[in-house]
Amino acid sequence: MLALFAAVPATAFASQDGHGLDAKIWLILAGMILAAKIGGEVAVRLNQPSVLGELCVGIVLGNLGMIGMHTFDGAAELVPIEFLAEFGVVLLLFEVGLESTLTEMRAVAPTSGSVAIIGVVAPMALGYGVSLWLLPDAPFSLHLFIGATLCATSVGITARVLKDLNAMAQPETRVILGAAVIDDVLGLIVLAVVASIAEFGAVPGALDLTKIIGLAAGFLVGALVLGAYVVPGVFRAASKLRTQDVLAAVAIGLCLLLAGVSGEAGLAPIVGAFAAGLILDEVHVRPFGKTSAHDLTEIIGPIVAVVAPIFFVRTGMMVQLSGIGTEPLFLALALTIVAIVGKLVTGLGVRGKTADRLTVGIGMVPRGEVGLIFANVGAGIRFEGKPLIAAGVYAAIVLMVMASTVVTPPWLAQRLRQVMRKRSDDA
Amino acid sequence: MLALFAAVPATAFASQDGHGLDAKIWLILAGMILAAKIGGEVAVRLNQPSVLGELCVGIVLGNLGMIGMHTFDGAAELVPIEFLAEFGVVLLLFEVGLESTLTEMRAVAPTSGSVAIIGVVAPMALGYGVSLWLLPDAPFSLHLFIGATLCATSVGITARVLKDLNAMAQPETRVILGAAVIDDVLGLIVLAVVASIAEFGAVPGALDLTKIIGLAAGFLVGALVLGAYVVPGVFRAASKLRTQDVLAAVAIGLCLLLAGVSGEAGLAPIVGAFAAGLILDEVHVRPFGKTSAHDLTEIIGPIVAVVAPIFFVRTGMMVQLSGIGTEPLFLALALTIVAIVGKLVTGLGVRGKTADRLTVGIGMVPRGEVGLIFANVGAGIRFEGKPLIAAGVYAAIVLMVMASTVVTPPWLAQRLRQVMRKRSDDA
Repeated sequence: MLALFAAVPATAFASQDGHGLDAKIWLILAGMILAAKIGGEVAVRLNQPSVLGELCVGIVLGNLGMIGMHTFDGAAELVPIEFLAEFGVVLLLFEVGLESTLTEMRAVAPTSGSVAIIGVVAPMALGYGVSLWLLPDAPFSLHLFIGATLCATSVGITARVLKDLNAMAQPETRVILGAAVIDDVLGLIVLAVVASIAEFGAVPGALDLTKIIGLAAGFLVGALVLGAYVVPGVFRAASKLRTQDVLAAVAIGLCLLLAGVSGEAGLAPIVGAFAAGLILDEVHVRPFGKTSAHDLTEIIGPIVAVVAPIFFVRTGMMVQLSGIGTEPLFLALALTIVAIVGKLVTGLGVRGKTADRLTVGIGMVPRGEVGLIFANVGAGIRFEGKPLIAAGVYAAIVLMVMASTVVTPPWLAQRLRQVMRKRSDDA
Repeated sequence: MLALFAAVPATAFASQDGHGLDAKIWLILAGMILAAKIGGEVAVRLNQPSVLGELCVGIVLGNLGMIGMHTFDGAAELVPIEFLAEFGVVLLLFEVGLESTLTEMRAVAPTSGSVAIIGVVAPMALGYGVSLWLLPDAPFSLHLFIGATLCATSVGITARVLKDLNAMAQPETRVILGAAVIDDVLGLIVLAVVASIAEFGAVPGALDLTKIIGLAAGFLVGALVLGAYVVPGVFRAASKLRTQDVLAAVAIGLCLLLAGVSGEAGLAPIVGAFAAGLILDEVHVRPFGKTSAHDLTEIIGPIVAVVAPIFFVRTGMMVQLSGIGTEPLFLALALTIVAIVGKLVTGLGVRGKTADRLTVGIGMVPRGEVGLIFANVGAGIRFEGKPLIAAGVYAAIVLMVMASTVVTPPWLAQRLRQVMRKRSDDA
């Protein structure tokens, strides 16, 4: 009888829950959210930013398979988890953008620009050198590609540390955020050039480069124009609506709109989300009877607090300890050192004594998932019938990304606390 | 040169945005969120609940293809949208649960039970009758299946209307919510029996039915025990944590945990989310220095306000006007009438004068996506080599679901406003 019943199509029961999603997704999400808070708590008690704890519990969850618990195996790759993680980091950068203004960003633009340019040139050169030294027989294009994977800054980790430390108003924060936006545009160009050379042995034509740069610049300029001329009207109109919670919905709608447009222009969606936060300043929120954008932050805050940790736990979960052998360890160590040094020197781009150079340098260190994406593009390019980036080199890049991601939160927190203490003593 | 460049692998640029998701997803989401607020606003100005406006803009977005705009074609089926919609309705029912208490629910349990039982028996009998009358040559099992599709109540729509009208404290609300939970258990049993008969010509064995009922009952009892003995300790422990926003994260973690467990037990995830809200009452929130669960609602509110409308807009988007011919219109009309009548009579289950019978009846009318899922199961079962539920019958069921979903918000709002006005005049 039981056997007969078991033969009833699985859909009869799988669908009974009201949708086509596996109910397990809710358990995985609950586990990730609760683990994030436990990890964050342990980190805070150890005087570390909570994001470090979230990364670490992510590494634990993602590798439970090694002790026979397979609940979270492959969970990081599930589309709903990937999507919610991206949604979380998009909203995080939106919130970070809300706490900055365009005027503040414009003031640090020259410094941010220098920091971003050094942060592309130095890691590229150092990565090329390490690759040439340790992989002397590899093709020229592999050296280039390894250099490129060292260029990308993943600003999510740094933004969270700055937020965890209540350092949104510090000058270092503005310099790092501005540099990260410019870095993203430069990274786009570097990837296009390097991928074209690796695949066709030629740099892309001037027309193609112009197109890439034009799209990215067009987006940034468009966002500014939108902020100055269109958004105030939208918010004045929205303030007249009678529906509840219009402010949060219109703000998040605008954030996702710019995230999507920046994605379509080839930039990271978080760049668009940050830009949306920047252009939403107190002027637009005033028609709602609010006095500052901080009221908007109060509404967005709880949403970010729930979904942003999913991004960091997932980042940790993607670190697969079991897959890494000992062979690429030396290459990984060398790449990690140049990855850190290559970004630390970006502090030299800081003009005058406006911001602490070491803090800015440390803030640019994390590569996060952006470095992995560059590596994935390289693994997809075939050179003489084999992937340009072979398994061992790929593992070394993964280790470099891991190290640069995990080393940043405690280091940045320690340095920034020093700087902030000194600043308040001086004041 | 442009052609050469265009040959660079698409991934080089698709991945550049920092993830494997198409940037279009952010544009679709932004469109859905902004459209939801516009639709909600129009509805509110017409003195209707905003959820009606969200459903209607959903229908418009989902059918823009008819006038040549294909931006939202197939968007409702994208995994991230489906997931976020489910997440939205799960959080909505959690919030609704937060505004009720176990004691209140227990007080109306006998009434809720009668309402739920009538709400399964009456539509089943009427649906069977209509099918026998209009499809005299169809097999016995099709009549049964059509009856079954009329049983399921989709409480999301009703819950939103009650919330839009600030009617969470009314007795009708408790009766409807209690009946919806019981209905979900009954619907599970009906679907199992009907699917087994249709596929094997036999009712499932007593052992199998016991298993289904045992799992569902075990979940509900387990949730109550958890609420009484485990949750207070968890919240006391969580109140000692130093991390920010722990309350929201722990509450939502618990909500998703119960949603997942109820899903695994064969029930709808929203049943678990509602149970989680019920067991989280003021006792547990007190250690946080809060005086009532309403403080938790303040944190959850903005999240629900952003994601719940995605569920209702998506529900509207799944209504495909172009696919429906004129042939099944008469069957659809007959099914809609018995669908409405079969749930209206559930008001007779209300004992004494505790709650308004017509309000309860109207509240049970929407079938939402649950009816469609029953129909999908039927379409997946083959009878004499053909799908048990053929295209014409399926279209009629879709029309019935649409009608029952769209008719409820204005009708329920109108009746409930009358009842609430009379109640406040009497008081």
